[in-house]
Amino acid sequence: MSESKVLSVEDLQTSEAKWVKLKKCTWRDPDGKERPWEFATRPTRGSGGVDAVAILAILRSESNAFPPSTIIIEQFRPPVERYVVELPAGLIDEGESAEGAAIRELEEETGFKASSVIQTSPLLVCDPGMTNANMKLVTVDVPFPEKLEMPAQKLEPGEYITARIVELSKLAAEFKGLSSIGFVVDARLSHMASGFELAERLRQAKP
Amino acid sequence: MSESKVLSVEDLQTSEAKWVKLKKCTWRDPDGKERPWEFATRPTRGSGGVDAVAILAILRSESNAFPPSTIIIEQFRPPVERYVVELPAGLIDEGESAEGAAIRELEEETGFKASSVIQTSPLLVCDPGMTNANMKLVTVDVPFPEKLEMPAQKLEPGEYITARIVELSKLAAEFKGLSSIGFVVDARLSHMASGFELAERLRQAKP
Repeated sequence: MSESKVLSVEDLQTSEAKWVKLKKCTWRDPDGKERPWEFATRPTRGSGGVDAVAILAILRSESNAFPPSTIIIEQFRPPVERYVVELPAGLIDEGESAEGAAIRELEEETGFKASSVIQTSPLLVCDPGMTNANMKLVTVDVPFPEKLEMPAQKLEPGEYITARIVELSKLAAEFKGLSSIGFVVDARLSHMASGFELAERLRQAKP
Repeated sequence: MSESKVLSVEDLQTSEAKWVKLKKCTWRDPDGKERPWEFATRPTRGSGGVDAVAILAILRSESNAFPPSTIIIEQFRPPVERYVVELPAGLIDEGESAEGAAIRELEEETGFKASSVIQTSPLLVCDPGMTNANMKLVTVDVPFPEKLEMPAQKLEPGEYITARIVELSKLAAEFKGLSSIGFVVDARLSHMASGFELAERLRQAKP
């Protein structure tokens, strides 16, 4: 296995693209003025209206054998030419629910089987000034009677994903370390770690 | 002032686009196989290499007059045809630092002047399967000797932004309410609230 690498980049016309398209809309602002806006879209969105899910798996010991943890993945992402640290995630298949896609993708990318869905977020938008991409975050419960064991992944051909277990309270520190050695972290996952860290900092600062 | 609305949407060719472009790269996978990948990019990125900043403003009372809070914004986003709840954010001007852009955008969009920068995140990627968009999250300190007062915004012409103060510990509940009345929440901000909520839930569940 060798290092993944981008060899060349060229302009692509919308008429030749299969996975992402450019659109231009005309919108009316609150003063009644008509304005243009350019953005990118995925032509793959199914009738459910949601492009993708990300999965926050709560790995939890029923016997307090280990602290609450989660699983993150690392994969080479050609658009940014870097190995990116992300939550497990994937596009929703036609006719599939967000929860169904979450359980399927978690097992494919990490091998873990969720025992139940804790909560599903409302619809979220990923970068709404630039694209119409949307998603839901599905939080699932992965309980362990005893110690934590890493199952085998079930990757499809052409998927190269490394899965890593991290304690929730150490995510933010982990990301600082990974960033310093050349990885880049997905903004959504990083914001989650920032929120977790902030709650702990404010609690410690309380008089 | 009337409701913002998208009037029409059409295909856009990369050669005619100004704010977003499509690219196609060839990358080499770990098995040595060459593969294509399509993605969108912003042609506006400056020499600093970072497209944008988001600002997490910690609004904090020096006399314990109010709980730690932050400021979020609401604006119509044509790509998703909805009013979106986000952190204050903006593109970085050529020659500007992430911290400089954060302090400037916070004041423009909300009126608040940061007294200092608490931390700047490493480089983050926004949606790395679909675009090469990147950003930094800048956390700033906005202290108040006494009670919290909402300053006047300094919006540019064509900017229609509503700013709202929310207690940090109530963000997740606030988003559930806003989603139920037709707003959509930015995934990064929502993940931050999820991380905050998760830390508090785990603390309460501790034996």
